[in-house]
Amino acid sequence: MGSTFGHLFRITTFGESHGGGVGVVIDGCPPQLEISRDEIQFELDRRRPGQSKITTPRKEADQCEILSGMFEGKTLGTPIAIMVRNKDPRPQDYEEMRLKYRPSHADATYDAKYGIRNWQGGGRSSARETIGRVAAGAIAKKILHQVAGVEIVAYVKRIQNLEGAIDPETVTLDQVEANIVRCPDVECADRMIELIDQARRDQNSLGGVVECVARHVPPGLGEPVFDKLEADLAKGIMSLPATKGFEIGSGFAGTVLTGKEHNDAFCLDDQGTMRTATNRSGGIQGGISNGESIILRAAFKPTATIGQAQQTVTTTGEATVLAAKGRHDPCVLPRAVPMVEAMVALVLCDHLLRNQGQCTVLMP
Amino acid sequence: MGSTFGHLFRITTFGESHGGGVGVVIDGCPPQLEISRDEIQFELDRRRPGQSKITTPRKEADQCEILSGMFEGKTLGTPIAIMVRNKDPRPQDYEEMRLKYRPSHADATYDAKYGIRNWQGGGRSSARETIGRVAAGAIAKKILHQVAGVEIVAYVKRIQNLEGAIDPETVTLDQVEANIVRCPDVECADRMIELIDQARRDQNSLGGVVECVARHVPPGLGEPVFDKLEADLAKGIMSLPATKGFEIGSGFAGTVLTGKEHNDAFCLDDQGTMRTATNRSGGIQGGISNGESIILRAAFKPTATIGQAQQTVTTTGEATVLAAKGRHDPCVLPRAVPMVEAMVALVLCDHLLRNQGQCTVLMP
Amino acid sequence: MGSTFGHLFRITTFGESHGGGVGVVIDGCPPQLEISRDEIQFELDRRRPGQSKITTPRKEADQCEILSGMFEGKTLGTPIAIMVRNKDPRPQDYEEMRLKYRPSHADATYDAKYGIRNWQGGGRSSARETIGRVAAGAIAKKILHQVAGVEIVAYVKRIQNLEGAIDPETVTLDQVEANIVRCPDVECADRMIELIDQARRDQNSLGGVVECVARHVPPGLGEPVFDKLEADLAKGIMSLPATKGFEIGSGFAGTVLTGKEHNDAFCLDDQGTMRTATNRSGGIQGGISNGESIILRAAFKPTATIGQAQQTVTTTGEATVLAAKGRHDPCVLPRAVPMVEAMVALVLCDHLLRNQGQCTVLMP
Amino acid sequence: MGSTFGHLFRITTFGESHGGGVGVVIDGCPPQLEISRDEIQFELDRRRPGQSKITTPRKEADQCEILSGMFEGKTLGTPIAIMVRNKDPRPQDYEEMRLKYRPSHADATYDAKYGIRNWQGGGRSSARETIGRVAAGAIAKKILHQVAGVEIVAYVKRIQNLEGAIDPETVTLDQVEANIVRCPDVECADRMIELIDQARRDQNSLGGVVECVARHVPPGLGEPVFDKLEADLAKGIMSLPATKGFEIGSGFAGTVLTGKEHNDAFCLDDQGTMRTATNRSGGIQGGISNGESIILRAAFKPTATIGQAQQTVTTTGEATVLAAKGRHDPCVLPRAVPMVEAMVALVLCDHLLRNQGQCTVLMP
Repeated sequence: MGSTFGHLFRITTFGESHGGGVGVVIDGCPPQLEISRDEIQFELDRRRPGQSKITTPRKEADQCEILSGMFEGKTLGTPIAIMVRNKDPRPQDYEEMRLKYRPSHADATYDAKYGIRNWQGGGRSSARETIGRVAAGAIAKKILHQVAGVEIVAYVKRIQNLEGAIDPETVTLDQVEANIVRCPDVECADRMIELIDQARRDQNSLGGVVECVARHVPPGLGEPVFDKLEADLAKGIMSLPATKGFEIGSGFAGTVLTGKEHNDAFCLDDQGTMRTATNRSGGIQGGISNGESIILRAAFKPTATIGQAQQTVTTTGEATVLAAKGRHDPCVLPRAVPMVEAMVALVLCDHLLRNQGQCTVLMP
Repeated sequence: MGSTFGHLFRITTFGESHGGGVGVVIDGCPPQLEISRDEIQFELDRRRPGQSKITTPRKEADQCEILSGMFEGKTLGTPIAIMVRNKDPRPQDYEEMRLKYRPSHADATYDAKYGIRNWQGGGRSSARETIGRVAAGAIAKKILHQVAGVEIVAYVKRIQNLEGAIDPETVTLDQVEANIVRCPDVECADRMIELIDQARRDQNSLGGVVECVARHVPPGLGEPVFDKLEADLAKGIMSLPATKGFEIGSGFAGTVLTGKEHNDAFCLDDQGTMRTATNRSGGIQGGISNGESIILRAAFKPTATIGQAQQTVTTTGEATVLAAKGRHDPCVLPRAVPMVEAMVALVLCDHLLRNQGQCTVLMP
Repeated sequence: MGSTFGHLFRITTFGESHGGGVGVVIDGCPPQLEISRDEIQFELDRRRPGQSKITTPRKEADQCEILSGMFEGKTLGTPIAIMVRNKDPRPQDYEEMRLKYRPSHADATYDAKYGIRNWQGGGRSSARETIGRVAAGAIAKKILHQVAGVEIVAYVKRIQNLEGAIDPETVTLDQVEANIVRCPDVECADRMIELIDQARRDQNSLGGVVECVARHVPPGLGEPVFDKLEADLAKGIMSLPATKGFEIGSGFAGTVLTGKEHNDAFCLDDQGTMRTATNRSGGIQGGISNGESIILRAAFKPTATIGQAQQTVTTTGEATVLAAKGRHDPCVLPRAVPMVEAMVALVLCDHLLRNQGQCTVLMP
Repeated sequence: MGSTFGHLFRITTFGESHGGGVGVVIDGCPPQLEISRDEIQFELDRRRPGQSKITTPRKEADQCEILSGMFEGKTLGTPIAIMVRNKDPRPQDYEEMRLKYRPSHADATYDAKYGIRNWQGGGRSSARETIGRVAAGAIAKKILHQVAGVEIVAYVKRIQNLEGAIDPETVTLDQVEANIVRCPDVECADRMIELIDQARRDQNSLGGVVECVARHVPPGLGEPVFDKLEADLAKGIMSLPATKGFEIGSGFAGTVLTGKEHNDAFCLDDQGTMRTATNRSGGIQGGISNGESIILRAAFKPTATIGQAQQTVTTTGEATVLAAKGRHDPCVLPRAVPMVEAMVALVLCDHLLRNQGQCTVLMP
């Protein structure tokens, strides 16, 4: 039952890359939220394939249909089901994968676990599955913004060794969307695009780092001890395809500092509000948001599917060589940006509701 | 309800650092497992305070009592409750923290969330909470070993900038336990110990990286899409106190490789079994274990509580200075080693049972 | 998040009576189960409206579409999404309900809870929601039958005061389906049909009791203490629309016996297998199945929606009179039969997997 | 993992009748609730053995210890662990049960499921397990009362065929506690006591019905479709030892009425508030509380353990006779009253928090 995420604001995704379609059921959504199909489609358009020369050429408009849970433009409080049909499947492109396991892909492990596999495309391990997450994330974002003015912005921080200079406190969605690689450092973005395009021409692929900031998150979100906010964020991020690492605040770099250097001293701002002088904690202390910006990073490996020939083994246990056909992203990061935002929004929204449930009921 | 972890093999921890005691309830444990109190105590002894000059001097024998779920040396299949009394609390040491928030600690966020806080020690955010996890982890380890010969070994990989050279495929528990810093690179260990001891004398603290390997994990564990094995491992690790980052396999370093360089080619070993030629995947592909060793790393920040004076704010909103008394670890990593092993064992055991439940019931 | 049911074999339903459609996502289904769309449709046909003169005349073919989770006739182990479009909605029939609360219906409580309501039909409280349950139940039934030969048969035991004489140990699906009221006591069935038809003509409605037997359930299903098998069955049954009571085994009647009279003595059958001489326990002891037939009963109230005029109140708080138009069942019991079977199958299948997960993993 | 109950206000019980002790961990409790150990002990005293001549003579003071989650008289919002030691175990009384299965008890099914059983007493199936529920229920009750003035009162409605006349709208705790059988119909109570005492002398046992009312429950609690309030109440009640049936509102009796007779017409009270003219719905419509009193009934079978000789089978499969020694209740109902109240309180409190979480967060 690993297709469900969240405790109060809970989503269940379904669907394979080849088959009737993919989608999501969102259960526990607060009632009376005004949200349109267009607002959801906006986020889906950010993740859809074929949006630029550095993404997969698969042609999918990914138009969503809202099946339930909405009435006259508002949420009903009952499950919201959203579906996207698969429009451009090409099972024939995958005929070879029927018998040959793609290295570092999910083919072999799905066979090991289930004894069966939809070899047409990535099946359930396809990034198409994230359509449901992104659709649900659009709703979570709107709730967070409406309740507390939360702003969630992710962007490509690094492609291979090209790292952009971005200020998480000020970066905007418009800056992110201003170029096809979604790196708000414009100069760096141009070089990233060229690098990815070169990888595409080489039938190779690249990885990198997506950074995400959530600003104006109210203090008090997150539940010790297992459902610490960073723990649930880590799970959400690491459940995305191709992720290999997660950092909150200072991350691995913080481990070379001393406690004296690393600690975020408390201070008072102009309004006399308690703040932290620095934010190495990344907006979370003791598993609970402290009101500072939540800043996290996700490591994405280079796309496993590449056109170059690779050593592999057949389903019947013979050594062979595979040169993938199919259509794939030379670098997943540009399209991963809305996925990261969605997962962050889903975690924060769930904890917003959980905190409301436990910690406000006895208040006067 | 954030104190519960796991879906079939499920633990719930309780307790604060000051109060009656801490413990755990383990629900869903397979029946008829032979395990003694000593086997559980062995792991608790590895995490207890006061075990060496580089850990907190708090004196706690941390002797556990099994309250239920065992009969004549075997598990009953019913909840196993294990409790450890708090023996050496010193609330007076924390009198100052009643009014002053410790920087980068959980004091302020607990107050923000709950409006109340046990200021005697770390309360629920204390590392004492992990006693329950480690006790439960001992049971999970035994199940994994008995069913599949799984070996889980964690060790200190790096302290600040001192990094040990350790081969995860061969490292043993004995090597880890051979020195007080739990780094199996003996030479490096000596320098780490000196470095930590110096930090202690400076009333400062240090961070670093714990690495963990799980060998002989059966293929097929992990559930797409949200409960991918690396996602649940990430959550488990990031729920430990003081963690700032998580990596599986190649981690962040893997992001600078190309797909061609990064992919783990499939090959056949001497027995004709499919293996991967390299293991950048860290034993998990598509969220499911592939039979190779699972290798992960956790970043631990320098201990927040230090003796040096720090700028902070009082509970009534005034700027002040705090120089912590109390007893604390100058570096949490040596004691974090059994905690990391416990969380890895808990995740693997839960997924072992989940896989058994879903994927073996229709088998002939 | 109340639209999810089950722990390992887990379903999430979605949809309102008026809107895009209704359906279900089944997560955790064992892989490699052979099942066809026709087998699922067979059960949906048993619950669809318009099947006889004693059910609602709403015309819905309720043809299901499997969106995901199947490949070449087998389950993949990934989520199975099944959808049924709403084909014959008539929102205009419900225009009056926009402003007037139907007595003993969900209109007023949905408004109280959510502050919004899809007044076109029953919205989420419509019995159309059970389509998803029945579709999922078809899969659960097949698993149970394949693994252990389990047979689940429900039937109408009583309509108002007309009670059939049926032997739960021998009753068959064919006998149940032999008449439109689904009471295998043929003579009684005729009188029930006449009674319901009279209620329909009177614009009134009737209630009664559905009994269900599950034969050949393997011993060992159910988990003390909260997830006792009868507790989960009770929850499943009482989550069906219009239920007012639940009994397992001897039920309320058992409370007038003494312990000596009520206890099921153990004995040995011809093969030397331990059995119970009687079955007042209803196949469950201590919350765990004992291998005897599980027998339960569900009380269904008379349909709330009736054509006769009733006193009610408007959404703006004024007294008024309502005579429902719309289309409704004069008695829900004939169509409730497959719903009850579905809930029983879902509970048993979930516990089959849970028992497999916890209790077989250490077995040699 | 069947020892956990509730979604936001979540309890996990542990312990067998013979062993270190029994208890509960309550997770998700709202912070800053003032509650004393005495308030919890008050409820435990109502359920403890040895309280009168018609209960088991086992001598247990059942004094509880609060291990965590409280500070200076208030809840911390972190897990509250409560433990009661087993003080008067007599394993020798159960020596015979080691080899002989008690009819209609859990001995045989525990062996079938787990392959192991604590034969000293009832093990996990003992009513001692309910200590944790009752302790947690005391906290849930206080929250409900403080937030909304909810009053929960259960009482013995019927013993065998002796049924009391009690008005659920006015019955008080004092009336219930005024006699040892906990039937507020004083005259009937005397006859019930005599009847139970006779059964005790006969080494036999009796069953009956407990009724429970929850008054002033706020409208809006309960979540369609599976977590309907009556579904969760049914599960809670049917998870209590010895229950065989559950009714909400009109229950089974309601099935003989027509819709016209059964429906609760809406009307306006003196203050112009919408009410129902009758309450056959039992305070719940469409799975959601409507503000009227919630009224439910639970059927308890006669105690399985009796002194009279019964036919049974040994663990090695031979026919034999068993005459139970041990100490047991001739009728569980007087002590079941606080257990029923506890389960009702736990369900309502969980749904109070869940409703707060989902349905108030977007409110202005």
